[in-house]
Amino acid sequence: MYDVLILGAGPAGLGAAIYGIRAGFKLAVIDQSPVSGGQVLNTYEVDNYLGLPMISGGDISDKFREHADKLGVEFITAQVTGIETGKEPENIKTVKTDNGDYEAKALILATGAEHMHLGVKGENELSGMGVSYCATCDGAFFRKRTVAVVGGGDVAVEDAIFLAGICRRVYLIHRRDKLRAADILQKKLMSLENVEIIWDSEVKEIKGSDVVEGVELFNKKSNECSSLEVNGVFIAVGVKPVTEMFKGLVEMNEGGYIIAGEDCCTSAEGIYVAGDIRKKPMRQIITAVADGANAINSLQNALMRG
Amino acid sequence: MYDVLILGAGPAGLGAAIYGIRAGFKLAVIDQSPVSGGQVLNTYEVDNYLGLPMISGGDISDKFREHADKLGVEFITAQVTGIETGKEPENIKTVKTDNGDYEAKALILATGAEHMHLGVKGENELSGMGVSYCATCDGAFFRKRTVAVVGGGDVAVEDAIFLAGICRRVYLIHRRDKLRAADILQKKLMSLENVEIIWDSEVKEIKGSDVVEGVELFNKKSNECSSLEVNGVFIAVGVKPVTEMFKGLVEMNEGGYIIAGEDCCTSAEGIYVAGDIRKKPMRQIITAVADGANAINSLQNALMRG
Repeated sequence: MYDVLILGAGPAGLGAAIYGIRAGFKLAVIDQSPVSGGQVLNTYEVDNYLGLPMISGGDISDKFREHADKLGVEFITAQVTGIETGKEPENIKTVKTDNGDYEAKALILATGAEHMHLGVKGENELSGMGVSYCATCDGAFFRKRTVAVVGGGDVAVEDAIFLAGICRRVYLIHRRDKLRAADILQKKLMSLENVEIIWDSEVKEIKGSDVVEGVELFNKKSNECSSLEVNGVFIAVGVKPVTEMFKGLVEMNEGGYIIAGEDCCTSAEGIYVAGDIRKKPMRQIITAVADGANAINSLQNALMRG
Repeated sequence: MYDVLILGAGPAGLGAAIYGIRAGFKLAVIDQSPVSGGQVLNTYEVDNYLGLPMISGGDISDKFREHADKLGVEFITAQVTGIETGKEPENIKTVKTDNGDYEAKALILATGAEHMHLGVKGENELSGMGVSYCATCDGAFFRKRTVAVVGGGDVAVEDAIFLAGICRRVYLIHRRDKLRAADILQKKLMSLENVEIIWDSEVKEIKGSDVVEGVELFNKKSNECSSLEVNGVFIAVGVKPVTEMFKGLVEMNEGGYIIAGEDCCTSAEGIYVAGDIRKKPMRQIITAVADGANAINSLQNALMRG
């Protein structure tokens, strides 16, 4: 029986783990992968986690894991298959996995989110080498260079506006003839001289030997192919929180994000949420780790006052 | 003219600075001290900032500052004497200092908070060597040892409960004959076998050559002095946000904390708040840095949509 089980070994889960173990909780972190880090593992370079400048995604993940290991955090490698709650007394939670069942008084859900992929040639091969899913994270690496943003929603347009302030030239590639993004964002975008929108076009391939050199486009209206030279491709075609298995357990919004304030308390007693799967204003490593700390703090408060 | 001026060079201010400069903002950080770090500078050891285990307060402050320096953040050493807003066009803000006036389109207030001191002999000398103002931060360093908590409010009692789960023995020293803390917390406290409350007593001195060895007490009812052997003293007699100069500028609560959600937007247009001076559930280095990131994110959103 654990005091708390943490589902997910990304920054949010490890942030919760170090705060939890320092608070004296008996806890474990469950992740399907034996390698901790979550989405960060697929990041080429991180330069916005204060105190660890210009570090690779692999190295910062190692540092996070080493910190947890030093404090004696237990890790369980298993795929979660289901969660049961309400076991008396004390509303014990059972986490069912392909590696056995685990019981705890409290849970912290920190399974993260996944960026949707285009599924084209070169995308995986050049991920982190010019292909990025986060303009806030990686934009600064493309100062005065030329990039393309793929997508047509709020995030794609926000990314294009953000990148226009950093890059020499920004192309926004959209497969339709109008954007889904909020009007006010579109207006701002149209006012920028170094942004060009490429309508009705799909990315067919991302090209480059070691780093991104360009994209191959297909225009759906003219049925013509073309090439575009760019140094970076920011893919903003959606994000999907990994919350399928928590349906019915805690309140979520339409997008599948779990609803909780910055205190990370979900609608269910003894269940907390941390990181990218939470409905929140900004999804970054630093805010994920902060969520982990807040989740433990809320659990402590509940135990003190409960 | 700056895009954004950041007031305070602690974790919140530096978190905002690295996100801000990577977003392409022209910015500067203003602090009265040329040495960055804020409260962290007075911390002996930090072990809860994920990725930088067991590091001194001075060293982690240096790492934060180096990160900002690498990105080219400008620092201004000056004492802020006042703030004026509303200058047309665009509601320019003027930060008045003993080193000249600075103008910006936006401000991030990150001046932090100060823990109240007892003002007794040994307190400053042994600060970080057994004297602590944060049980969450430093409790884990006193595993299976004996500590005293000084105070009688919610935080003091929470600290005592928290420490009881980690330490061998906890004394709660209070100068009155009853606690101010919430009933439910008092009840929890009374149920703990390894906690003893020392009523009607003031700490007269904290003793120790290199590290804390004990406290000298004075009982106000019996007028008697006594000694208590402890390894640590947690002082929980109040915290004061550094917000005097922001009165009338942004909305605050009774305690002087600036009111803002996790998006860090204050009641004033173009003014954001980050770190310990914000009304928030948990004041830690990691949550301060996350606030800095959120403040910049909100500023970006406002500029995109404004």
